[in-house]
Amino acid sequence: SAAAVEPKPPVEISGSPGNGVTVKVGDVFSFNARSRIQLRYQINVPPADDQGERDFQQIVNIGTARLWFSGHVYRPELTYMIQLAIAGRDYRDGATSPIFDAYIDWKIHRDFHVRAGQFFVPFDRLRTVREFALQMADRPVPVGELTLDRDAGITLYSENFLGKESPVAWRLSAFGGGGTNLTTSREPGALLVGRLELRPLGKIDDDSEGDLERRRKPAVALGGAFAANYNTNRLRSTTGATFLGGTTDYLHAAADLVFKWRGFALQGEYLWKRADVDRIESTDEDGNPRTEYTRSGQGTVFQASYVFDPPIEIVARFSRLYAFGGTDPKLVSEVQSRGQEVGVGLNYYFNKHKMKLQADWIARMPHDFDFEKANHAAHLQLDAMF
Amino acid sequence: SAAAVEPKPPVEISGSPGNGVTVKVGDVFSFNARSRIQLRYQINVPPADDQGERDFQQIVNIGTARLWFSGHVYRPELTYMIQLAIAGRDYRDGATSPIFDAYIDWKIHRDFHVRAGQFFVPFDRLRTVREFALQMADRPVPVGELTLDRDAGITLYSENFLGKESPVAWRLSAFGGGGTNLTTSREPGALLVGRLELRPLGKIDDDSEGDLERRRKPAVALGGAFAANYNTNRLRSTTGATFLGGTTDYLHAAADLVFKWRGFALQGEYLWKRADVDRIESTDEDGNPRTEYTRSGQGTVFQASYVFDPPIEIVARFSRLYAFGGTDPKLVSEVQSRGQEVGVGLNYYFNKHKMKLQADWIARMPHDFDFEKANHAAHLQLDAMF
Amino acid sequence: SAAAVEPKPPVEISGSPGNGVTVKVGDVFSFNARSRIQLRYQINVPPADDQGERDFQQIVNIGTARLWFSGHVYRPELTYMIQLAIAGRDYRDGATSPIFDAYIDWKIHRDFHVRAGQFFVPFDRLRTVREFALQMADRPVPVGELTLDRDAGITLYSENFLGKESPVAWRLSAFGGGGTNLTTSREPGALLVGRLELRPLGKIDDDSEGDLERRRKPAVALGGAFAANYNTNRLRSTTGATFLGGTTDYLHAAADLVFKWRGFALQGEYLWKRADVDRIESTDEDGNPRTEYTRSGQGTVFQASYVFDPPIEIVARFSRLYAFGGTDPKLVSEVQSRGQEVGVGLNYYFNKHKMKLQADWIARMPHDFDFEKANHAAHLQLDAMF
Repeated sequence: SAAAVEPKPPVEISGSPGNGVTVKVGDVFSFNARSRIQLRYQINVPPADDQGERDFQQIVNIGTARLWFSGHVYRPELTYMIQLAIAGRDYRDGATSPIFDAYIDWKIHRDFHVRAGQFFVPFDRLRTVREFALQMADRPVPVGELTLDRDAGITLYSENFLGKESPVAWRLSAFGGGGTNLTTSREPGALLVGRLELRPLGKIDDDSEGDLERRRKPAVALGGAFAANYNTNRLRSTTGATFLGGTTDYLHAAADLVFKWRGFALQGEYLWKRADVDRIESTDEDGNPRTEYTRSGQGTVFQASYVFDPPIEIVARFSRLYAFGGTDPKLVSEVQSRGQEVGVGLNYYFNKHKMKLQADWIARMPHDFDFEKANHAAHLQLDAMF
Repeated sequence: SAAAVEPKPPVEISGSPGNGVTVKVGDVFSFNARSRIQLRYQINVPPADDQGERDFQQIVNIGTARLWFSGHVYRPELTYMIQLAIAGRDYRDGATSPIFDAYIDWKIHRDFHVRAGQFFVPFDRLRTVREFALQMADRPVPVGELTLDRDAGITLYSENFLGKESPVAWRLSAFGGGGTNLTTSREPGALLVGRLELRPLGKIDDDSEGDLERRRKPAVALGGAFAANYNTNRLRSTTGATFLGGTTDYLHAAADLVFKWRGFALQGEYLWKRADVDRIESTDEDGNPRTEYTRSGQGTVFQASYVFDPPIEIVARFSRLYAFGGTDPKLVSEVQSRGQEVGVGLNYYFNKHKMKLQADWIARMPHDFDFEKANHAAHLQLDAMF
Repeated sequence: SAAAVEPKPPVEISGSPGNGVTVKVGDVFSFNARSRIQLRYQINVPPADDQGERDFQQIVNIGTARLWFSGHVYRPELTYMIQLAIAGRDYRDGATSPIFDAYIDWKIHRDFHVRAGQFFVPFDRLRTVREFALQMADRPVPVGELTLDRDAGITLYSENFLGKESPVAWRLSAFGGGGTNLTTSREPGALLVGRLELRPLGKIDDDSEGDLERRRKPAVALGGAFAANYNTNRLRSTTGATFLGGTTDYLHAAADLVFKWRGFALQGEYLWKRADVDRIESTDEDGNPRTEYTRSGQGTVFQASYVFDPPIEIVARFSRLYAFGGTDPKLVSEVQSRGQEVGVGLNYYFNKHKMKLQADWIARMPHDFDFEKANHAAHLQLDAMF
């Protein structure tokens, strides 16, 4: 009703490939709709069995599909985002809700922003790289095991603390700790996260993989984070199966680096996770003892790439995951059989990450280069945003 | 093709916070897209057990998220609405479809409108208050048990019968009676509903809780409804578990009142539901006898609020649910342990119901004020429409 | 960034009933959002049992609801399409993803187009008629059993081969063969499909049923297709239950005809499907032998209609399904009891297929006209696009 007496704000409509359509009503409102699909061919080749045979496995599907509805309300600094992930493979851990992101973000002041809702836990760099801006089809193994994915809660942060050109960014967060799209309650708890970032050489798009701009001046981002997830009932802290017989506390740490220069890009990351207890003992409905294990370990990831002009990119990854003594025997066994990851990829960027063709091959093996024992996966992907 | 020879109708684009973006093409077409998210923190505190301990339970999630696609087609009086509810908690009774509303509505004449599709059964006021316009985090217990939620069917109605300023509204409906998003058939049946409304002091936004306008002149809405749901196989008439061994008939009645004046608002409602049979006897696959109970009872709700200027609101609720003799022993037990509800809330309205911060505390206990035996729930919510 | 230096392309906004809203930004981008809902009343009447009683079954629901997000990117010839189907009944075979279509289509040259993603397998005409443009509530029985539905893959095609007015269209496809929205991998395989179409009398909307235009000149479309689905683990080739104990190869053939003139329309189709093996023998988790049957058979469909002016249409369907010797005993039994289909319908088109009221009655019976043994289904539908 206040708007009725003010002059009507001007309406602007725009749209472009990869950025969707935007309606902007002055400073008081905007709406953007965007979408993305990924067509994916994947073939898995396990090690040969005793008869020398391999059980090849294939899947052809829409690897992911996304819808974004976003914009600002009341003032340009107050933004909203709803991201839906709607391909079959996007519904994880039995989810029926397609919501990945649902948050509002208020840039109150240069030194103090706040975001509330469901979104990426700002913990490690490699997990918070935007999904559409990845160089390889699957995230690294240590990230899948040790990261903190999405959750519902609140983050206070600044991208440029104490100065517009400041190299310092900080993020302090409190989340529910149980992950996304919860429908059942549990013992109270919280996930507390602190992260500090340094960009000493100026701006860098470290939320997007590769140096597709082939920048003339080197750019670097350094980050470190700690997190404590109290009383979680999820196997991997905020993801995975739900414990039936109790909860645990998880401590997390991360250190990461991104460097880009003249088409070359390097990402490195160290991740560490330790549960308060290795096993949760309880009694099931029939009165029998039940043991559930937690998962503690650490890992490192290195990923390097070079993009030519025209934009053909080669990328390589090396990662290792380690299990701590006494942790989930399943994790120990996964590390023993597939704890080292070696991958290479070849990408063609029609329009940077907004339209690209990707091929890669990723091998997961024991902690040496015994390719005889490796599980191989090869992917061919077409990824397009609209 | 007819449109091709007529002059092109003018295109208008508009948008504002809470109202989404609208494209209007003269009288022949419009399209509106809107969204809403709710970030929710909930803590539940049950009564102490024999050792004096309480099993606190917490959930942090997106309490609900909505997408609306609506507009008019062919003429302004013929409107359409698709409302999707996509948060984890929105998928009830095992639903996979996100559709809450999907209907067309034709205002043929002042005295005769028709709506067809899936939408709120126009039965009682408190259930048909729009979800985003609620003052407290959960609907009252008697409403959850005794109302008629959404269904697929047709409603004939007039908001102002026999005169533009007429205080009389009527609604006659026929629904399938089985609730929303059905995929399996059952014995034929129907839900028939009649509702009469009176607004003797003129227009009132009784589909929205509270007197956020702090109106100078008092406004009141009175309503009464009867319904008969023949051959339903749903436990609570149109919601809840599906009977395996048969169907029942449910009779329903409702009377309700909304009053608003100078920031004060009062809602009162009486609900009554009786099943034709108290128990459905059948034989299961193994030849064993199976008994399924129906749920008959009644209840009352009172909710009062006052909103200050600036828009801080206090709200209080009192409700009681009663089970009829012979009905589902589970309902009897629920009524005995949690049949009375006492709640208070505190809301801050940034932009009325379109952006608000809500805190409340609701206690459910036996039919006296024995707070020792109460189940407590406290909520903190941020609710925003875009 | 290239766009930044070029002059801004003009933005056009349009919208009309059934066609949604479109934002077009010159040749480089467009976005269209459209929706559709169908309110459906269905009653099923099986044959009388020994006591002469019939177990009537009813369902009232949103039969389907669709959302389309489509447009072009970079150039008008490069289009994208995301179609979501979100009513309860749209989630088949345990799906949680609402994606029906997700593809990009590039009309590189008059003689050579390419489509990649998830979409209708271009195999037989009756299945690839667009869902909103059907004359009867259910697709014919032989189509449900013998068609190739949707899958993820790539199609090379031309609608007018070797000339703008050429009557020849061809389509060569390679799909994963496992159907839509897959999340689990299997033995490698592929679905290869070739289809040839002839439209000797010029353009015809054979992807839309009926002759709603009441065209003055006759139009005809002829088609034939072969397909081989290697190593599929789906019961009906690309749909149905997933085999637990192995895979099979399916060979498919189709021949179809569409004719339209002066309000009269005729569709005829022959479908043939044969599995490489009739039964897949394996061993279950407990070491017991497990037999899974494949489904081989053939069928024919004829559907004829006449539309009056005003647009009231009558439609009739006759179809027969045959099971091959040795195939799944369930298929044999379905054919014996319901292998012949007779149906009639009455439609009123408010705005062609974009707003219509449909009534039909379909009887399925043994291979003679023994209506005593027929399963009857009657439908009443309101179908509207926005």
